[in-house]
Amino acid sequence: MTYVHNAWYVTSWAHEIRPEHPVGARILNQPIVIWRNAARELVAFEDRCFHRLAPLSLGRCEGESLRCMYHGLLYDRTGHVIEIPGQERIPNNARVRRYPVIERYGWVWIWMGDAEQADERLIPPVGGSDYSDYVVAHGQLDYAAEARLVNENLLELSHAVFLHSDSFRYGETWALDRPKIMEQERGIFSERWIKNQGLLGVKGADPSVDTYFCYEFYVPGALLMTYRSYPVGTADALNGQRPDPTEAIGGFTGDEGFTRQAVTPLTDKTARYLYIHGARRRGGETVYDMTVIDKAFAEDKVMIEAQQRNIDTSPGARFVPTSADRGIVLFNRIVDRLVRAEASRVSEASAPHRIED
Amino acid sequence: MTYVHNAWYVTSWAHEIRPEHPVGARILNQPIVIWRNAARELVAFEDRCFHRLAPLSLGRCEGESLRCMYHGLLYDRTGHVIEIPGQERIPNNARVRRYPVIERYGWVWIWMGDAEQADERLIPPVGGSDYSDYVVAHGQLDYAAEARLVNENLLELSHAVFLHSDSFRYGETWALDRPKIMEQERGIFSERWIKNQGLLGVKGADPSVDTYFCYEFYVPGALLMTYRSYPVGTADALNGQRPDPTEAIGGFTGDEGFTRQAVTPLTDKTARYLYIHGARRRGGETVYDMTVIDKAFAEDKVMIEAQQRNIDTSPGARFVPTSADRGIVLFNRIVDRLVRAEASRVSEASAPHRIED
Amino acid sequence: MTYVHNAWYVTSWAHEIRPEHPVGARILNQPIVIWRNAARELVAFEDRCFHRLAPLSLGRCEGESLRCMYHGLLYDRTGHVIEIPGQERIPNNARVRRYPVIERYGWVWIWMGDAEQADERLIPPVGGSDYSDYVVAHGQLDYAAEARLVNENLLELSHAVFLHSDSFRYGETWALDRPKIMEQERGIFSERWIKNQGLLGVKGADPSVDTYFCYEFYVPGALLMTYRSYPVGTADALNGQRPDPTEAIGGFTGDEGFTRQAVTPLTDKTARYLYIHGARRRGGETVYDMTVIDKAFAEDKVMIEAQQRNIDTSPGARFVPTSADRGIVLFNRIVDRLVRAEASRVSEASAPHRIED
Repeated sequence: MTYVHNAWYVTSWAHEIRPEHPVGARILNQPIVIWRNAARELVAFEDRCFHRLAPLSLGRCEGESLRCMYHGLLYDRTGHVIEIPGQERIPNNARVRRYPVIERYGWVWIWMGDAEQADERLIPPVGGSDYSDYVVAHGQLDYAAEARLVNENLLELSHAVFLHSDSFRYGETWALDRPKIMEQERGIFSERWIKNQGLLGVKGADPSVDTYFCYEFYVPGALLMTYRSYPVGTADALNGQRPDPTEAIGGFTGDEGFTRQAVTPLTDKTARYLYIHGARRRGGETVYDMTVIDKAFAEDKVMIEAQQRNIDTSPGARFVPTSADRGIVLFNRIVDRLVRAEASRVSEASAPHRIED
Repeated sequence: MTYVHNAWYVTSWAHEIRPEHPVGARILNQPIVIWRNAARELVAFEDRCFHRLAPLSLGRCEGESLRCMYHGLLYDRTGHVIEIPGQERIPNNARVRRYPVIERYGWVWIWMGDAEQADERLIPPVGGSDYSDYVVAHGQLDYAAEARLVNENLLELSHAVFLHSDSFRYGETWALDRPKIMEQERGIFSERWIKNQGLLGVKGADPSVDTYFCYEFYVPGALLMTYRSYPVGTADALNGQRPDPTEAIGGFTGDEGFTRQAVTPLTDKTARYLYIHGARRRGGETVYDMTVIDKAFAEDKVMIEAQQRNIDTSPGARFVPTSADRGIVLFNRIVDRLVRAEASRVSEASAPHRIED
Repeated sequence: MTYVHNAWYVTSWAHEIRPEHPVGARILNQPIVIWRNAARELVAFEDRCFHRLAPLSLGRCEGESLRCMYHGLLYDRTGHVIEIPGQERIPNNARVRRYPVIERYGWVWIWMGDAEQADERLIPPVGGSDYSDYVVAHGQLDYAAEARLVNENLLELSHAVFLHSDSFRYGETWALDRPKIMEQERGIFSERWIKNQGLLGVKGADPSVDTYFCYEFYVPGALLMTYRSYPVGTADALNGQRPDPTEAIGGFTGDEGFTRQAVTPLTDKTARYLYIHGARRRGGETVYDMTVIDKAFAEDKVMIEAQQRNIDTSPGARFVPTSADRGIVLFNRIVDRLVRAEASRVSEASAPHRIED
């Protein structure tokens, strides 16, 4: 499995990158340093000094510049060396790779491919963190597993019935019925009705409703899911079609709950998983039991890391898709198409320049 | 060094496999799940689901079946998938490998080779755990070393004089005299007299005796050792031949003490070691100091794991056998013969079927 | 990067090798055991028994001999097996490699190459540990980095300005001015003046002086550095030349301070670093803040281990020397010359014999 490079990857929460404190990360196996310049704007470089590969994340922010604190080379915000202590001449190739980086929706997004093709419109609309009508929970897990396995876990949610039988407690319908899945330009759209059940995840007894779920899953690994409840009978009356958001139960326009999640490959066999989960306030509070989220996501982690260990020790073994895996198959096809397109587009002119080239 | 596959390997203590709690293990590098069906009988599968290689040891026992708790595939006791949630058609090849498994002598035995050749008569007669005339100690060590090194440690006991000089305190005779070793169908038999010494391992002063030791060591790695004491002079009177069990000191028929041990390769460089040690009761108690056993086996572990590290960093280095290594040489020759026989016997008809084939 | 073998490597502090307690180490990837014979002289062998590669560092000192405590083989001080318990004939090749080893200056030095070429005169004059006029601090760090990186850190001290800005607090001059560097037979000599500054590393306020620093760095990795202070103006008056030691400030002949350091490759990616640091007594005490040393060397370790991780994940990346790296370039050239000379000198007659050959 290869990953798309011309895409925005979430590296971390934006508040983690504080002024004066460069932060190192590894994204798609590449060492990256992210820092804020004097204007508090984010800058991202490869995290190894041109001189002797020392990490710039151990460096010092100096206004618009970042200094390597091993031997003092100073980099401007474009990644060019502008000072070598005690040496006048600075070689033309004295620079590190700079990556496009953007702070949006509370997350830091980095573009790992050709900088000239970086397009902010490709950042998915991951709103939610600041919605005042919702109680919002945040979380993060670092996986000892490849990002692909975490993505595929989110692309096939029938697993919730089994893996999350002690947390989400979804009814069997989740696994027996298939959602409608549509292919999009850079991802998939999935929607479904769950009819005549108590609202999922709600504490205590709750009257039955018809619930409409839908989500988009974007390349390289962003999940945007929402759900709304309607009176029992709505799904059948609509013949399973998409409902009007303004007619949802609750007397408000919009979603009952939402989740926003991002999966980022750190290395071949490790991944970062960030998530926020919003539940509509009813009065001042939510009726949703937010602790269920962390429990469920810990269940995912145990299973996926064990799956990874099995993969590692079973070099000849292959996955065998079931009919539930349609979202996975479609998504991976999109990724493959984008990866192939990148490979054919790379030329002398557009290839990212690397010290080691 | 390769291992025989058509053999019974000890995976664990039988009481560790509780109903409703599948247990995962790695035997000969293969992930294995062992579980009890509704009738409390043992079943062993490869521990990776046909669908996406999730471990079935995280699954749920459902009567005669085992359900993968990632996406809900249900396996019958033969390893065939009998349910894929939300999908009617079940592919013909939807199954996992099943391994013959038997509970005997308090241990779980698994057959790692061709299931059709599994022969219960090849399980060595490892009695002892339930002998009421003996005080019996149990123990287990997991080694960071290949099983072969642990086997060879047990096949050449002269090491006790040096490595166990602070625990077993065997006299020099152990290392200077050679036991008589005979080759058997699937193992070796070794016997010896130790003349005119206090009984080994006994607490405090003890009158001198002649002690007869003998053991069998079976493929793939099972040690069955016993010893009995006789009045001084017996060994010479018998000219070193095998004595009559009924004439042993103690007024009882049988052995003064025994040990039963099993060595199992978990992976190329890790092994499991299970042992029980029985000492005859004299009155209600034993005079044998059972704590010596754990001390001695910890000494083995330190040495063998250090030996393994040396092997790992000395790719070109070879062992050079001494005359004391005859048991090792004979045993390894048997293993090699069996491995070669397996290789020549494998055909389309008899080869074990694997998902990845 | 390859290392010279015909050279003395520091393995440890001499006091760590106690009688009756063989000590194992790994030097240049080779397992080594160092022990003291009955006369308390050091002996060094490869640390794996001829028989089954068990570590001799788990063995027992017996006067002039060392016994392997696995199966009892006894080695004389030349590394030849002189006893195999229970076996009369001892094979001609039953021996382990012996390494020349010397105790000097409080350190244990081992010669890793052709024993016939071992020349004690190649041990650098690392005095200092016992100088009564100095307060002397000792320390040791084991690095998760190749020795080469630690050597190069010591061969280019401009880094002190940046990496040690919170510990040594050297002025910018350290990085802007270049020392004079001279090539020697097996190392480099470096000297410099720092003019009109307070004495480096001294606690509290201190009148400005001109300070003369010089050091030798010897193959394979030994640093001997000293410094002395003179009245301001001395450096200019001498036109930057070497000053007379007897005219230094302090009313004493000799150095204000010194440091002796040794770097030893344990494996390809690990190294040992031993150091002593002496500061002249003024009255009974030193004005030098010795805790600064440990802080600074911990800063080196963090940076160099991070540099190593970057190297490991950047297979194609190369270092790009600046003008400050002249000492590194010269030293590595010497190492390369010596390694090539070794390679061409190796012949059937002089090659070290190894079990695995």
